[in-house]
Amino acid sequence: MREVFHDELRSLAEQLTQMSGLVSAAMASATQALLEGDLALAESVISADAQIDAQQRHLDDRAVALLARESPVATDLRVVVSALRMSTSIERMGDLARHVASQARLRHPHPAVPDSLVPTIAEMGEAAANIAMAAGTVIATRDLDLAVQVERADDRLDELHRSVFTTMQAPEWQETAERTIDMTLCSRYFERFGDHAVSVVRRVGFLVTGDLMKPVQPVAS
Amino acid sequence: MREVFHDELRSLAEQLTQMSGLVSAAMASATQALLEGDLALAESVISADAQIDAQQRHLDDRAVALLARESPVATDLRVVVSALRMSTSIERMGDLARHVASQARLRHPHPAVPDSLVPTIAEMGEAAANIAMAAGTVIATRDLDLAVQVERADDRLDELHRSVFTTMQAPEWQETAERTIDMTLCSRYFERFGDHAVSVVRRVGFLVTGDLMKPVQPVAS
Repeated sequence: MREVFHDELRSLAEQLTQMSGLVSAAMASATQALLEGDLALAESVISADAQIDAQQRHLDDRAVALLARESPVATDLRVVVSALRMSTSIERMGDLARHVASQARLRHPHPAVPDSLVPTIAEMGEAAANIAMAAGTVIATRDLDLAVQVERADDRLDELHRSVFTTMQAPEWQETAERTIDMTLCSRYFERFGDHAVSVVRRVGFLVTGDLMKPVQPVAS
Repeated sequence: MREVFHDELRSLAEQLTQMSGLVSAAMASATQALLEGDLALAESVISADAQIDAQQRHLDDRAVALLARESPVATDLRVVVSALRMSTSIERMGDLARHVASQARLRHPHPAVPDSLVPTIAEMGEAAANIAMAAGTVIATRDLDLAVQVERADDRLDELHRSVFTTMQAPEWQETAERTIDMTLCSRYFERFGDHAVSVVRRVGFLVTGDLMKPVQPVAS
């Protein structure tokens, strides 16, 4: 019976990893849609978000059913409660990818990103997609060294977020207020996406080390 | 034993209501700090957020301890899981109030809000504070008519959020990019604050009616 239960816990983790892959791909596509003004791609991200939402509901139902049926305690209970929380974070990452895609759609056929910000936004999109994928691997492997890399990649994302604001506040920035609004929002979406990934890997760190609040540290140090 | 358990569930709900009151007050003060350039008030909101975070951790620990000790099923289990989720939303509302206060501090001693947006931001702050307070009452009373009012108040907040963008995109808007960035972010913070309150009242609606996704409807209709 316990063996079945642990299989189910592993299956919850697998589903979380799969969801992480979906939101990673969604953010990669949303960024591409934003940079290239690709309406069809933007719309595919927007409509695919419903699948991520459905996966979250399915996972949450399974987790609550496990709580009801198995009445886990101690570590097992922590694992199930953490799964509920991670699914919330990952679902929210899907929403943020959808928001980026919505900005691409809103401005189509005009390019949403001014030339001066194209390299930064491209790097943010790539970093965000990589972070989500890595968070999924951390869930699957509990590799805390990789969790540290997620934290560092998120630091870089925060740095890029601040640099977007610096660019927009420089005298050379002659874009419309609409552009300023768009880039403020998009940059914020990327930054929040990274925050949620960090929250996911910290929950994994908590399961391994028992300390939730602390940034994940290299295991060896 | 069950009676003790139900007392504890009520106590969780009370703590959620109390947290809702704290984030309501935080958002009211943050808005005032933003509008009046009140540095001391902004700093008090920023430092008080740690208390809201601590309350959340305390509540979550109690909820998980209840799951471990009582192994609730059916409705009781749903109540505990919902409490965990509501505490996450309310804690996040506290973060958003802190973000508004941080904007006030960042721009001090300059007024953060241009004259043309003062009435809108004031109304957003008031609506947000009212929504949080009402959400707390919904948790305490399970009054779904009040939940409907929260949904409507959030619709108004969304409308104000869009109107901030309209104002900033009008030809009369001659503010700096810095101001445009600030107002985009603040408006977004208010809007998200309202979304979280709606998510809280929908969870209460779910406990009462069993339907999570649907906006709360008037009970009589």
